[in-house]
Amino acid sequence: MSNQLEAESRNHRKLGQELELFTSMEEAPGMPFFLPNGMVVRNELENFWRRKHQKASYQEIKTPIMMKQELWEQSGHWDHYHENMYFSNVDEQNYAIKPMNCPGAILIFNNKRRSYRELPIRYAELGLVHRHELSGSLNGLLRVRSFTQDDAHLFIRPDQIESEIDKVLELIDEFYSHFGFEYKVELSTRPEDFMGSEEIWDQAETALESVLKHKGVNYQLNPGDGAFYGPKIDFHILDSLGRSWQCGTVQLDFQMPEKFNCSYVGEDNNLHRPVMIHRAIYGSIERFMAILIEHFSGEFPLWLAPVQAKIIPISDTHAVYAEKVRFLLESAGLRVEVDYRNEKMGLKIREAERQRIPYMLVIGDKEVENQSLAIRKRKDGNLGVLSIEEVVKRFKKEIKPS
Amino acid sequence: MSNQLEAESRNHRKLGQELELFTSMEEAPGMPFFLPNGMVVRNELENFWRRKHQKASYQEIKTPIMMKQELWEQSGHWDHYHENMYFSNVDEQNYAIKPMNCPGAILIFNNKRRSYRELPIRYAELGLVHRHELSGSLNGLLRVRSFTQDDAHLFIRPDQIESEIDKVLELIDEFYSHFGFEYKVELSTRPEDFMGSEEIWDQAETALESVLKHKGVNYQLNPGDGAFYGPKIDFHILDSLGRSWQCGTVQLDFQMPEKFNCSYVGEDNNLHRPVMIHRAIYGSIERFMAILIEHFSGEFPLWLAPVQAKIIPISDTHAVYAEKVRFLLESAGLRVEVDYRNEKMGLKIREAERQRIPYMLVIGDKEVENQSLAIRKRKDGNLGVLSIEEVVKRFKKEIKPS
Repeated sequence: MSNQLEAESRNHRKLGQELELFTSMEEAPGMPFFLPNGMVVRNELENFWRRKHQKASYQEIKTPIMMKQELWEQSGHWDHYHENMYFSNVDEQNYAIKPMNCPGAILIFNNKRRSYRELPIRYAELGLVHRHELSGSLNGLLRVRSFTQDDAHLFIRPDQIESEIDKVLELIDEFYSHFGFEYKVELSTRPEDFMGSEEIWDQAETALESVLKHKGVNYQLNPGDGAFYGPKIDFHILDSLGRSWQCGTVQLDFQMPEKFNCSYVGEDNNLHRPVMIHRAIYGSIERFMAILIEHFSGEFPLWLAPVQAKIIPISDTHAVYAEKVRFLLESAGLRVEVDYRNEKMGLKIREAERQRIPYMLVIGDKEVENQSLAIRKRKDGNLGVLSIEEVVKRFKKEIKPS
Repeated sequence: MSNQLEAESRNHRKLGQELELFTSMEEAPGMPFFLPNGMVVRNELENFWRRKHQKASYQEIKTPIMMKQELWEQSGHWDHYHENMYFSNVDEQNYAIKPMNCPGAILIFNNKRRSYRELPIRYAELGLVHRHELSGSLNGLLRVRSFTQDDAHLFIRPDQIESEIDKVLELIDEFYSHFGFEYKVELSTRPEDFMGSEEIWDQAETALESVLKHKGVNYQLNPGDGAFYGPKIDFHILDSLGRSWQCGTVQLDFQMPEKFNCSYVGEDNNLHRPVMIHRAIYGSIERFMAILIEHFSGEFPLWLAPVQAKIIPISDTHAVYAEKVRFLLESAGLRVEVDYRNEKMGLKIREAERQRIPYMLVIGDKEVENQSLAIRKRKDGNLGVLSIEEVVKRFKKEIKPS
């Protein structure tokens, strides 16, 4: 198949509908509806995110979707971004629906007097943001108007910049490796429409470059592609068709702490200004799901598969044992379904394969007698006969949660 | 202490600030900010919800926060509720920010042709809704403008009404029992401002009454207190101060399926109209958290406690072992913190108790020597010396996830 045909056969909108992962509706253009199968994938991605971030000593927060317009004027988003923002006016007060999560995290940082001993503070937020995009540019989960950023805002001392950037790069590497993605790194510097002084920009750009060089990371320089509030390192993952997708981003920010007058009490008992790091790894859960769907062609690895195994009783007489198997596998935390229909085994297997279900567990007279399962893997075919406990063990090993 | 003083000492706004669970800000009145400790509680409540609903064969979905105004005109929300709704106008299209989750669930049901064999379909959604309330009425997490409903919409055949209502009542009982809550039940009937025909209302009210009587549930009749689209059963939990809080609700709805022309193919190959059940158990995650904070006076049971144990090394020489204990307990999935400060043991214990941390694990010379822990329980005091494995076992047993 040519690369283009291959890409079309993997189109995430097509597979999203076929595998009942998500759907788009004219009642909310660009704001996807997640179907039950898609929610399983999404919840697994969010659980993985939570485990990894707890381990890396991040603290999770949740900030409101709507906040007063004045806040966005203070942050500079109104000046630089209001054309892409949604607003709502109630009781003569203008509210903006958040296009970014930073101001919320800053309000939480500023909610309390902070000491140098507390830093770095690493706030992580799965934040739902809305950004207006032209209707012609919308594309399934790839280009949307509402999405969930796997955001984090780090408040650090200036002397912690390099060590924290280093840790963020480690975490990003762990994430992408877990999915088997290779990736490219780009350093983007001061754009034309920038906020703050050139001097501060130079300082931030030097810090990022220094970490990349120190770690021996190969990176490309993108002059002028930084955010309006600071320079950034972008991460482009490479999918199974060799296409590259910008996902992760790490942005150093000396501006926002100024605008919001953030401070901490230093060892010298004086107030100091923290530095902020904005970063995302998936980028957006929605967009990352689109990339995964196309990368795996809907054939998710076991830990992400909405249904991990289809139990296939060959005839009615095997239904009671099939129900027992379902109960035991579900009790072990696995996601399984039984195909009780009165159809030929071959058809049931073909259908399970078309649904991209990783395993099929076939039950005939022998399996009932020996309390076992004939196990088939999608594409690989027959793998022999295993006991229920062996199947659970095999699946758990393949899932290996981290 | 008098009941009123006791209630004041448990005030969830006061405890919310003190225990760093959540905060309110003038930048978003009525839209709470969840702090890291509060997010732990919230995530535990959501995980418990997810486990219970998976077991009860619900399917999770997620629908957009904003949808076109026309949809809300079709649903009747605009007529009956628009004064409490937020709107946003973009590209000459009016969007409403959802005050309820039902229309989204209906769009997903209608997205595909449905067969009688598929029913009941049980869609569960942790849906973020926004409802405008007067600023004078706002109260911490109890009365808010944005909150997350633990919503579900069931699409069922008319012959499934009683069995499904029965199952919902069972699930609600399991939830409240898990928290140790007693509860009262109220049946609310046709309000003055109602939608649809009197005949359909009578039919719906009879069905709800019949299940309650059949189950032998004691209930109070509230004539005229139903939703505008159908009669409902409300659940009021009783807290430790004897106060009652309306949380759960089960609403039968014959109207919405008409308005949205929902249908399924029956055994007779003809199209039939499903019945809808709307239901919530927590009601709102935010409000339920407020109730839990006051009910437990911030002393959450172990499974909900933001920090489950404070590790207290008596002096610097115990720090290395304290770090090992932290690592082992965290690896076992427990939430612990070490108090490394150079303070007296008594002060560290008092402070941990003030933070409502359930357990303290004190480490002195003997504990380092025997690789053990002196375990104290908040309020109960000293419980003796245990090995690390025994502590893990004790905690796991107390948490007993369901």
